[in-house]
Amino acid sequence: MSNDTFLRALRREPTDYTPVWLMRQAGRYLPEYNATRKRAGSFLALCKNPELACEVTLQPLDRFPLDAAILFSDILTVPDAMGLGLYFAEGEGPKFERPVRDEAAVAALAVPDPEAELRYVTDAVRTIRGALNGRVPLIGFSGSPWTLACYMVEGGGSSDFRAIKTMLYRRPDLMHRILTVNADAVATYLNAQIAAGAQAVMIFDSWGGALADGAFQEFSLAYIRRVLQGLHRDREELVTEADGTQVRRRVPVPAIVFTKGGGLWIEQIAATGCAAVGVDWTLGLGAARARVGDKCAIQGNLDPMALMATPEQIQVEAIKVLESYGTPQAGHGHVFNLGHGISQFTPPESVSALVEAVHSHSRKQRASGVSASSL
Amino acid sequence: MSNDTFLRALRREPTDYTPVWLMRQAGRYLPEYNATRKRAGSFLALCKNPELACEVTLQPLDRFPLDAAILFSDILTVPDAMGLGLYFAEGEGPKFERPVRDEAAVAALAVPDPEAELRYVTDAVRTIRGALNGRVPLIGFSGSPWTLACYMVEGGGSSDFRAIKTMLYRRPDLMHRILTVNADAVATYLNAQIAAGAQAVMIFDSWGGALADGAFQEFSLAYIRRVLQGLHRDREELVTEADGTQVRRRVPVPAIVFTKGGGLWIEQIAATGCAAVGVDWTLGLGAARARVGDKCAIQGNLDPMALMATPEQIQVEAIKVLESYGTPQAGHGHVFNLGHGISQFTPPESVSALVEAVHSHSRKQRASGVSASSL
Repeated sequence: MSNDTFLRALRREPTDYTPVWLMRQAGRYLPEYNATRKRAGSFLALCKNPELACEVTLQPLDRFPLDAAILFSDILTVPDAMGLGLYFAEGEGPKFERPVRDEAAVAALAVPDPEAELRYVTDAVRTIRGALNGRVPLIGFSGSPWTLACYMVEGGGSSDFRAIKTMLYRRPDLMHRILTVNADAVATYLNAQIAAGAQAVMIFDSWGGALADGAFQEFSLAYIRRVLQGLHRDREELVTEADGTQVRRRVPVPAIVFTKGGGLWIEQIAATGCAAVGVDWTLGLGAARARVGDKCAIQGNLDPMALMATPEQIQVEAIKVLESYGTPQAGHGHVFNLGHGISQFTPPESVSALVEAVHSHSRKQRASGVSASSL
Repeated sequence: MSNDTFLRALRREPTDYTPVWLMRQAGRYLPEYNATRKRAGSFLALCKNPELACEVTLQPLDRFPLDAAILFSDILTVPDAMGLGLYFAEGEGPKFERPVRDEAAVAALAVPDPEAELRYVTDAVRTIRGALNGRVPLIGFSGSPWTLACYMVEGGGSSDFRAIKTMLYRRPDLMHRILTVNADAVATYLNAQIAAGAQAVMIFDSWGGALADGAFQEFSLAYIRRVLQGLHRDREELVTEADGTQVRRRVPVPAIVFTKGGGLWIEQIAATGCAAVGVDWTLGLGAARARVGDKCAIQGNLDPMALMATPEQIQVEAIKVLESYGTPQAGHGHVFNLGHGISQFTPPESVSALVEAVHSHSRKQRASGVSASSL
């Protein structure tokens, strides 16, 4: 691989600089993405077309020297494959035609076969790996069991999670049944992505932060742990040896867990066995690092709205994040990212300024040898 | 006063049981509230009519043995009084006709005179105090400077806070100018409520949790501190002595600060000089208490959606919160509340079950003498 800085940081090995990628880096802030999406006809058609999904996955890498690619897909492919009927109404978020609201609907849930119902995803992974040709690693992903359940029970986005929390408090048995199926479906799905070529995987627990302390551990974290326990932790890759020969070898596949709004539970998330914990902008990275210790690496955490600033101001904000983390030391690792998906309103020049700032300042940090300083 | 349990808990004095009130307790889940609102013609007309505001303030107290009343009003009265033109579009949240978007609009902002532009609020406070006649204490309130600024700059609710964060990152000078005016306006406004009869005040920092660590301290917490520094900390009240005589005496007016999503910063919020810190459901009260220590009291923190459960399940959830906090000891105090406003979809019977469970279980806790147990 030409650039394995991202994987090295996740393995908490020394790197020359801090690797950076951005959640939703292939997205609507890029004119070329909008053009491809238009050709596809819709967001869902784009997700389901491996060639076009590959095209948009690579677009941000052609513009910016990012250190990882992430599979272009939707987090709701799994419940869609379960037969719930995912659709997107114009100008609205994702919705399901058949939300899971009663005992019969819960009983009918089953783990989909990823190489059948989700073949378009594993095809996309294979296509992207071929197109990347070792430039940077490819990240596969899924929503967390709880986050998938939120959409499945609510039937779409929600501001108060009334339907799912009513089920959680009234019928915890049904809730656990959904989450068990989801956890097994997510593990199977991520394993299929790994088998197809994903070199790291990320679990997006976008709505874990909506849960009460106690409920988070029972209804989200426990099922993230179940997913991680079911994951294949390595895959066979063609590796180039020091002498230039190529051999097939089993290499680890790190898993990143990101609970939005999960800063209060970071120690518990770090203890799940993930390679890295994702952190949003509400928790400073210095504090995150102190709390995680040498349990795993950390990914994050610039406020996506900082990219609305001038390039000079973005540089200042990027440096703040890097200085808050400090210089990586043995057993620690940092992957720079936003604390949430990039906004569709971001000027692409902002991303150039950010990536440049992260790469150049993190090289300087390592050169100066200052460690774990804090702003 | 017939029932001063709430004020005693805020002063961290011994109480016979844990006092309870609910954010938005006078609200749409009550049929009698909806009837009064209909008579008023609109939400804003209801807020601006002291007699009707008094009527709805007292409605939940007539149904449930709650330990405090809270002024019925809107958190955006201050920017409305600044001339921004608050209105509510049908089925939508609050909006401003003239959002603060440029330098000229920022320069034009000034602290309103509460006894002129906000007279309807202080009139409501006086009317409610008269009608309460010492039954329970009356809480006054305001949005925090940052939360008011969010609505003022966004022109309404927002999911990404793009307008205000663009200003924050690009023009921090303008942001600080707005927040300075807001802090002085909030302090003046709360002082007018205190002068009119409010026996405690609460600052709702509903959107503090949207800020990055660092930005929260600079753009929200610093201005909450400025408000607290400007507050009158006591007011003259007619107090009944042990021998039954009534005398005028200055009594303290405690201030509660509630940052939704602020669990990570609880020590810093507790250090502002507030009497109590409000906690949402993401931070367990046992942990909150350990972190706050004897700095101030704690208010919270049941997930409002727990009220969608059966009365038996609500009792279990209420006990979990009480047991997580443990038995109050010298220098500690707990006011039971939800972690956010009560949902309009809450069955009123749920509130009966909750208040009964809080009162009866907290009496048992004190009787058993077990302290600070944790589930």
